Amino acid sequence: MNYFVTGGAGFIGSNLVDRLLQGGHTVVAYDNFSTGHERFLEGAKTSSNFKLVRGDTLDVAVLTKAMRGADFVFHLAANADIRFGTLHPCRDLHQNTIATSNVLEAMRQLGICRIAFASTGSVYGEPRIFPTPEDAPFPVQTSFYGASKLAGEALIQAYCEGFNFTGYIFRFVSILGERYTHGHVFDFYKKLCQNPNELLILGGGYQRKSYLYVQDCIDGMLQGIERSSNMINIYNLGRDDHCDVNESIGWITDHMGLNPKREYTGGVRGWIGDSPFILLDTRKMRERGWTPTVSIKRGVIRTLQYFEDNPWVLEEEK
Amino acid sequence: MNYFVTGGAGFIGSNLVDRLLQGGHTVVAYDNFSTGHERFLEGAKTSSNFKLVRGDTLDVAVLTKAMRGADFVFHLAANADIRFGTLHPCRDLHQNTIATSNVLEAMRQLGICRIAFASTGSVYGEPRIFPTPEDAPFPVQTSFYGASKLAGEALIQAYCEGFNFTGYIFRFVSILGERYTHGHVFDFYKKLCQNPNELLILGGGYQRKSYLYVQDCIDGMLQGIERSSNMINIYNLGRDDHCDVNESIGWITDHMGLNPKREYTGGVRGWIGDSPFILLDTRKMRERGWTPTVSIKRGVIRTLQYFEDNPWVLEEEK
Repeated sequence: MNYFVTGGAGFIGSNLVDRLLQGGHTVVAYDNFSTGHERFLEGAKTSSNFKLVRGDTLDVAVLTKAMRGADFVFHLAANADIRFGTLHPCRDLHQNTIATSNVLEAMRQLGICRIAFASTGSVYGEPRIFPTPEDAPFPVQTSFYGASKLAGEALIQAYCEGFNFTGYIFRFVSILGERYTHGHVFDFYKKLCQNPNELLILGGGYQRKSYLYVQDCIDGMLQGIERSSNMINIYNLGRDDHCDVNESIGWITDHMGLNPKREYTGGVRGWIGDSPFILLDTRKMRERGWTPTVSIKRGVIRTLQYFEDNPWVLEEEK
Repeated sequence: MNYFVTGGAGFIGSNLVDRLLQGGHTVVAYDNFSTGHERFLEGAKTSSNFKLVRGDTLDVAVLTKAMRGADFVFHLAANADIRFGTLHPCRDLHQNTIATSNVLEAMRQLGICRIAFASTGSVYGEPRIFPTPEDAPFPVQTSFYGASKLAGEALIQAYCEGFNFTGYIFRFVSILGERYTHGHVFDFYKKLCQNPNELLILGGGYQRKSYLYVQDCIDGMLQGIERSSNMINIYNLGRDDHCDVNESIGWITDHMGLNPKREYTGGVRGWIGDSPFILLDTRKMRERGWTPTVSIKRGVIRTLQYFEDNPWVLEEEK
């Protein structure tokens, strides 16, 4: 198969590229390097089945040209920075919604009709049902990020219905693991490297979240695609358990051998649009044989080990 | 109050403008006249409280300038042509989603924070529950129109959460009545004027739909706004009963004194994205004292009477 991966130099994208190449497939990675790193593709670049194209999903001409010849598109490129949505309310619209429209239009023009999309549990807003199933009550959005991803999902569904596309929509919890470059483990590790004696925590520390290890996430996407036969296939990807921010800080400080004074900004949310509790119902994926194998704690520790082995990731923060 | 009404020269918009002026308010109507008619505003223009600004919601500078001084925005401007979505898949994205983002950004820049939005029952896709409540299971989109309106709703919700806006989202069934200029009654009436002996019907004629009379719709919006106190307020607006396409054709042909041969294109849907059954649960609005007063049949007949009194509407079809 010829795969086209937008955001192919990013955290999840580059891990996916490696997996697809290991599976004997041909891969074009498309990335604007706004948050991706070329170093993530060092392994991939040794393969003759791999090609890297530097480009933006907002540049329709370059995008369409790069996509030619693909059989299947993984659309992972996105502004994934949920926290700063209100600082630039149009960024998510452009980089997530309009970009997704561009990807779909390029596919339509090229006659490519299978797409997998990295969506997010944030589309559930602040759900009333836990664990939250794919058919939870009609959600109300609480972030620009969630709104833009929901719009991306909706566009994909319209292309499926209107142009016989096949769509695979994966709603992720936060993902952890090798090449992770933003989010709470990154922020805490970096702060603790700078000041091991104090740690400022956004919110009250009681926000409960589920985290998934990146290879489990990729297994989920690949198995979800393989084991689905509908026109539109929507799956939650997460773990059945969760931790709270304080627990996770305990693992991080224990691993680093630190005991910083914790300061809290307070409140049940860390920022506008932060969901106090994220726990997705993954029965639908599990019924298809998928099981995550790495615990949340193990995922956090592998992420820390990755930082220790790759200090450049923190220095080159984008 | 100073109201700003996008799509103020359109079917619902111009009726709303008249009602707001009757209530003693000041109104700026903003319209690009892509489907609106200046003749709809003949009454409004006699009021010193009324101002018409010709402009597009995609033109941020003109939009922002025109909106200055408003206290409340009714955002009704839209591409409402659900049927031809697949002919121009980006039109709904631009005219409905990006336009809504522009309206919200203009409001934010001007410090206006109350918005009512004309959404649609189409955001439910093909629902499983009838009548369909506002918190129906997470929908899957079946049209570009529905997808673009869902994205508009989501943006409004993000602005409410992020910038303390107050949002009133109304999900309409199809609206009928004076100044109605597109949809099945318009199409059938026009076809029958051209050829009274034959009528081509898209689909099998068994699509079941609920219709609401335009003044009932406006009552619903005004009462919904007045009787809500949440940051985000979402209401279905429709009738509790429905008719099928064949029934509605019967009313139209009886009223016109015709008995055309009916030809059907067949199938349960009239076009891609057509919903075979639309019936919204309006208990939430009814609990706030709203009751529609005009039956579906009466709404169809008033629409026909309007065409008879205003043949220019059919001649000037846009």
